Amino acid sequence: MPDKILDEISHRRYNPLKGSWLLVSPHRTKRPWQGQKEEPGVNKLPDYDPKCYLCPRNPRAQGESNPDYSQTFVFVNDYSAVKEQQQDYEAEPSSDDLSSLLLRAEGVKGKCFVLTFSPKHHLTLADMPASETIPIIETWTRIYAAHLAPTNPLAQVAANLDLMRREAPPESLVPPPSQQLRYMQIFENKGAAMGCSNPHPHCQIWTTSTLPEEPAAETIQMAKYRTEHSGRHLLQDYVKLEMEKQERIVHQNESFLVVCPWWAIWPFEVMIITKRHVRALVDLTEQERLHFAEAIQEVTRRYDNLFETSFPYSSGIHQAPLDGTDEEIENSYFHMHFYPPLLRSATVRKFLVGYELMAEPQRDITPEQAAVKLRDCGGELYRKTLQ
Amino acid sequence: MPDKILDEISHRRYNPLKGSWLLVSPHRTKRPWQGQKEEPGVNKLPDYDPKCYLCPRNPRAQGESNPDYSQTFVFVNDYSAVKEQQQDYEAEPSSDDLSSLLLRAEGVKGKCFVLTFSPKHHLTLADMPASETIPIIETWTRIYAAHLAPTNPLAQVAANLDLMRREAPPESLVPPPSQQLRYMQIFENKGAAMGCSNPHPHCQIWTTSTLPEEPAAETIQMAKYRTEHSGRHLLQDYVKLEMEKQERIVHQNESFLVVCPWWAIWPFEVMIITKRHVRALVDLTEQERLHFAEAIQEVTRRYDNLFETSFPYSSGIHQAPLDGTDEEIENSYFHMHFYPPLLRSATVRKFLVGYELMAEPQRDITPEQAAVKLRDCGGELYRKTLQ
Ligand SMILES: O=P(O)(O)O[C@H]1O[C@H](CO)[C@@H](O)[C@H](O)[C@H]1O
Ligand SMILES: O=P(O)(O)O[C@H]1O[C@H](CO)[C@@H](O)[C@H](O)[C@H]1O
Repeated sequence: MPDKILDEISHRRYNPLKGSWLLVSPHRTKRPWQGQKEEPGVNKLPDYDPKCYLCPRNPRAQGESNPDYSQTFVFVNDYSAVKEQQQDYEAEPSSDDLSSLLLRAEGVKGKCFVLTFSPKHHLTLADMPASETIPIIETWTRIYAAHLAPTNPLAQVAANLDLMRREAPPESLVPPPSQQLRYMQIFENKGAAMGCSNPHPHCQIWTTSTLPEEPAAETIQMAKYRTEHSGRHLLQDYVKLEMEKQERIVHQNESFLVVCPWWAIWPFEVMIITKRHVRALVDLTEQERLHFAEAIQEVTRRYDNLFETSFPYSSGIHQAPLDGTDEEIENSYFHMHFYPPLLRSATVRKFLVGYELMAEPQRDITPEQAAVKLRDCGGELYRKTLQ
Repeated sequence: MPDKILDEISHRRYNPLKGSWLLVSPHRTKRPWQGQKEEPGVNKLPDYDPKCYLCPRNPRAQGESNPDYSQTFVFVNDYSAVKEQQQDYEAEPSSDDLSSLLLRAEGVKGKCFVLTFSPKHHLTLADMPASETIPIIETWTRIYAAHLAPTNPLAQVAANLDLMRREAPPESLVPPPSQQLRYMQIFENKGAAMGCSNPHPHCQIWTTSTLPEEPAAETIQMAKYRTEHSGRHLLQDYVKLEMEKQERIVHQNESFLVVCPWWAIWPFEVMIITKRHVRALVDLTEQERLHFAEAIQEVTRRYDNLFETSFPYSSGIHQAPLDGTDEEIENSYFHMHFYPPLLRSATVRKFLVGYELMAEPQRDITPEQAAVKLRDCGGELYRKTLQ
């Protein structure tokens, strides 16, 4: 790596995707650790747990029972963070000017889904071959497609999708046109350290009438970049650059690049980015969905191999809004983030706390060092996969 | 509260201090919890631990020994996140244009201190009467004063401070004028849940050549507000408004307001704000330092009483930069943030994970509900304080 000096000195890096900075302290991993340790995360789970509300046939919180599903299963979250139907919010007629400046709020409607990855309680994405991850990607694509605004240029693409013709999502999941939503966030919390309250492999899908902060910031930055650089996409330029530099690449296949981004905050943070300009899940070809499944498999398996543990993380997909201007849709560039907390071993994590919350995110090892480690732990999953 | 509907519907609130939004889901605390539980945090610590590197007389990581101190003790962090002396960073002469756009970095110099609050290993701020917290505030003030740029209007104020004349900080702590730093972040991580690696009561002070992201965002927002509102300070208007509304106040004294801010992210987040315009620690009168100590005592004691546990949190002070334009200094408004993770009990915390990291911060109870609970648990500390 040419900028070797960045392995030695404390410095800041700029995240062009968010428009923000973070602090890097490469020399800092030497300090002793007397703080909290995580559970090492050994898999002693049964493949079916009668008490799990995600296992096939089991009852859920509000009385309904799960079907005897064989691949994935999607349902509306029994404790959704946003509601589909609720009173509209209008601020009190501003008796005073200060309230309207300093106590601002707006109502948010939406729908939250839970999607199980497998009927097997004890599996994780790392245990599942790419072929078994494909049904998950297909379900993501279907759910996303079914929520697109009719005016969204992607709606046309979705209508022509083979997998939608094969099997459209159940009507009960799709909101009526009068309730068009703005953004769909697909994310997974894996492991107790990342607040996951049930180990059964699953993700969540929160869909809101508003464009949330993180994708909103990316949307602004990506639009700005295109305007300033003759219509080129920020992430496409970034992919090109990383392929030239070969310093932060963890893995790649024909369609996807897996990198520890230059501006990573979490110790082993990675991004999966499409090599060509893809706006959203519905743009992916069947071949690309397979490559996406492979990329996810590579990331999660390497994570588990790194410290020989079931590696915790939060992951999420950023793509085009469900509803938005044609320009916004066109500016969108499909990618997936993984934010894992572990730093030095299966039990010692990085805490993003005092300084990080009050001042600026701070990391200890460099993304280049992280990439080397993740590159070096490919191959078979360290543990036997019980299917 | 007039906006009662906000107790029922999911909504977003705007944080004018940062210029960002968060999602509020007041109906969401009903869901069951099967996830990670924290240690309940019972204090079984001795008042002196021979293995603790912060206790008086004990050796530290790099061989030095602590003095036999009786109140506070400050030293340079043995594992600083930033270094005082290091090579300058210059990006490689830009062979390609993309690197200079997408791989941006800058060197950061600085100094990190650790400050113990007491020689007693087993105490926390909640155990210490306000009179014992005053020496901590005095040390913060001295360290801050000693780092001010000579051109900073606050340097003059600092020079006239009684407590500086009584006892200036040791020369070894003060950087030479050639190494003027830009910002000083004082913060505390308390409890294992907030990544604290040593229970001995202490805070950290990180001082950098750059203005970090959080205070930078606040600086911009505060400046904008003043420009748009005839020179009024955002936080002074906010204090006025909260005192009128009486909905989010936890406690107040003559000089400070303690509120759960309208835009709080963490379940029991609070802010301590000065009632009059104070730019930095050195602006506080002796009387105000006492009131500040009282406010800190009120917050930490109420926290502990809430779930009858040693409540974890990260806290931090935002104030004027050490170096900056006269306008920047004048726009600064002294305040302290507390970000505690606990949500429902001593063992169940709020995780800011998947959705929060990928999309937008999300909270479950409203700040108004949190304020009621914190208001109602004043009075004596629930546990006996062993001094
Ligand atoms: O310096 P400490 O207490 O060992 O470390 C703690 O606080 C730092 C500043 O917020 C964080 O960077 C670390 O991740 C955390 O464990
Ligand atoms: O919905 P779950 O899995 O119970 O909850 C988890 O993920 C949510 C979305 O990131 C967070 O808001 C919760 O704090 C976390 O515990």
